[in-house]
Amino acid sequence: MAHDAVLNDLRALGERARAAQAVLARAPERRKNDALLAIAAEILARAPDILAANAADVRAANEAGLQPSLRDRLRLDEVRLKAIATALEDIARLPDPVGEVIAEWRRPNGLLISRVRVPIGVIGIIYESRPGVTADAGALALKSGNAVILRGGSESFRSSRAIASAMHTGLERAGLPRDAVGMIPTTNRAAVGMMLEGLGGTIDLIVPRGGKSLVARIAREARVPVFSHLEGICHVFVHAGADFAKAAAICLNSKMRRTSVCGAAETILIDRPALVPSAAIVRTLIEAGCEVRGDADIAALDPRVVPAVEQDWATEYLDAVVSIRVVDGVVGAANHIRRYGSQHTDAIVTESDTAAEQFLDEVDSAIVLHNASTQFADGGEFGFGAEIGIATGRLHARGPVGLEQLTTFKYKVRGQGQLRP
Amino acid sequence: MAHDAVLNDLRALGERARAAQAVLARAPERRKNDALLAIAAEILARAPDILAANAADVRAANEAGLQPSLRDRLRLDEVRLKAIATALEDIARLPDPVGEVIAEWRRPNGLLISRVRVPIGVIGIIYESRPGVTADAGALALKSGNAVILRGGSESFRSSRAIASAMHTGLERAGLPRDAVGMIPTTNRAAVGMMLEGLGGTIDLIVPRGGKSLVARIAREARVPVFSHLEGICHVFVHAGADFAKAAAICLNSKMRRTSVCGAAETILIDRPALVPSAAIVRTLIEAGCEVRGDADIAALDPRVVPAVEQDWATEYLDAVVSIRVVDGVVGAANHIRRYGSQHTDAIVTESDTAAEQFLDEVDSAIVLHNASTQFADGGEFGFGAEIGIATGRLHARGPVGLEQLTTFKYKVRGQGQLRP
Repeated sequence: MAHDAVLNDLRALGERARAAQAVLARAPERRKNDALLAIAAEILARAPDILAANAADVRAANEAGLQPSLRDRLRLDEVRLKAIATALEDIARLPDPVGEVIAEWRRPNGLLISRVRVPIGVIGIIYESRPGVTADAGALALKSGNAVILRGGSESFRSSRAIASAMHTGLERAGLPRDAVGMIPTTNRAAVGMMLEGLGGTIDLIVPRGGKSLVARIAREARVPVFSHLEGICHVFVHAGADFAKAAAICLNSKMRRTSVCGAAETILIDRPALVPSAAIVRTLIEAGCEVRGDADIAALDPRVVPAVEQDWATEYLDAVVSIRVVDGVVGAANHIRRYGSQHTDAIVTESDTAAEQFLDEVDSAIVLHNASTQFADGGEFGFGAEIGIATGRLHARGPVGLEQLTTFKYKVRGQGQLRP
Repeated sequence: MAHDAVLNDLRALGERARAAQAVLARAPERRKNDALLAIAAEILARAPDILAANAADVRAANEAGLQPSLRDRLRLDEVRLKAIATALEDIARLPDPVGEVIAEWRRPNGLLISRVRVPIGVIGIIYESRPGVTADAGALALKSGNAVILRGGSESFRSSRAIASAMHTGLERAGLPRDAVGMIPTTNRAAVGMMLEGLGGTIDLIVPRGGKSLVARIAREARVPVFSHLEGICHVFVHAGADFAKAAAICLNSKMRRTSVCGAAETILIDRPALVPSAAIVRTLIEAGCEVRGDADIAALDPRVVPAVEQDWATEYLDAVVSIRVVDGVVGAANHIRRYGSQHTDAIVTESDTAAEQFLDEVDSAIVLHNASTQFADGGEFGFGAEIGIATGRLHARGPVGLEQLTTFKYKVRGQGQLRP
């Protein structure tokens, strides 16, 4: 009975979000920006409350013995709150995608057909320990006319609730419905299951923000579309025609700039004729503190190379470890990537435009690069201003998911009384 | 054991389709067109075989006592085969969407980012009695670089197999892999379940072609994306500011041009001030042989009106029956459509541009029209050349699904050695 009551409450939350979304869908850009700025101001004004809620979350995490990396993600301070507010202000400055005419044409019978951008609807955001996701994912969704239903992790529940409360006040101050930001009021895991089923037909899309096990569960169980990537097993292929100084710099940056991001390279593929000149790449990586696991040819280049095993080609290390193997040409590289890759981001280094174009065509990943670091896999670096994540699914959104990817479209057809013969 | 063998065979079919798709994705337009023309020629050359297979299907359907409308859909003759071949030739003439640069921009750091159209991958097409779907859905998928896995209904199994065989020959004649058209070799219903699960990760998208119960099952069970519409409860709203002669013509065409199509109007909404002048609309429909079910106000206009019940507003008649009710203004119409509609196609008739634009904004259906018949909901009428169906989902494809909607995109990023700071 108590359980039923919770489930009914959640469905009602979804219905209120859907009703609020109908208002948000037609809200002028000015009003959405006012709300984002009011939310930013409210978060700063409420800093003491939010930090107190966060301190309670952190205490509970310490008592529960949560691992240090999660505890770090959970912790808020004045600097992090200021960064959250600044991100909201940045999103307010981005152009509003809603209403954009994507295409327009006139038919011989005089009908004018316009393809117009509209919000997707209600977006369920399921996240873990990082409470700032409440504000940044919520803000991207709001700016693109979507309502959100947030489900924060139990470890960050108090912090997320305090931030969501600031968002409600900001929305109301701008004359928008507070229900546009719904927050699941329980840490009961059954709520996640209900969201993955679509919460009684009220959720149009799920965006997970968290580790691989969360994303895997969501991909497995969701009955509504999901924008996510499970992992980023990104490759750099050093072609025989590469500039090897450039190749070493790109390999080093792709792997070591930040090893924990999804766009970090995990495997380097060396074109067979490039084996000897690639010794410098191996040395550069090892000297930068990266463990290199190589096939027999690579191991022969440097005694510090650890022999790679089959599992290495399928591993996203997210650490200062890289696997390196020799392949035969663009086709060999593309075959390796097809077999072991995750359709996320893959790069070729070469001075041959022919080889580059062949690679860009053959490798069917969301992002394929020529002579650039895989770490450019990021909405900000693409010029999207902000992103809610990277998608490796094939439909609707691939690559960085920014404001535009949080919209869909409809056709407006304007006639003068046309009948179909 | 025998069951396992079938399942393994199906998975192998999926893997062969995926491998063939990698070839098709990079096939030049010319070669795909050659294949489509070769398939058209092969279908005509094999007419005796195909018609013999079809005659066997028809005999079995007669013996099984299949309903007459399904038997009609099943039947092929010289004229229908010729139409299938002509449709293939038409698809060969449509522009190839693959490779199109949808957007391109240069970043301040010199990176050139291009968003390029690529095929979706492997498309599962699940259909019922109409064997021609084998060729037309298959051809649209092929032209856009996708492989297909076809699962025809058991009643049309022999006909579909004969057509698929002609497609294999046509593909090979053009130097393309026959596995680009996979056909489920069994009428076992478990095969549909496997396709809805994605056939071991080999199917990217399902397109159902059939009646409501097939589509409902697929929407319920599919674990991969589906392009479909469950029903088309389409509305015409006659605004107070309408030209009533135009309104009568649009209502008549929207309802009665063809009553069995998904874009046929099922409900007419009359703006309260337009009640009296709308009597002519009611009369026109009744005199054209349409049963009118109306609310009390509408029933008062004409003694031949049948009183409508609640269920009428939620019914897709697909027949010469229409429900009519009075609403209050654009907002009343939009509220009715939000509650009872199917987000397919809805129209307003008015001479007021303000009212029209309000309706086009507020009604969130795939297609919204001003002063035109709802029966324009069709890929051909949109200028897409051909369509595989109409989608009412919110993501990726909404409205008519043509060649462009059977593609996705990837980002090609071209640099000169850029590293991420």
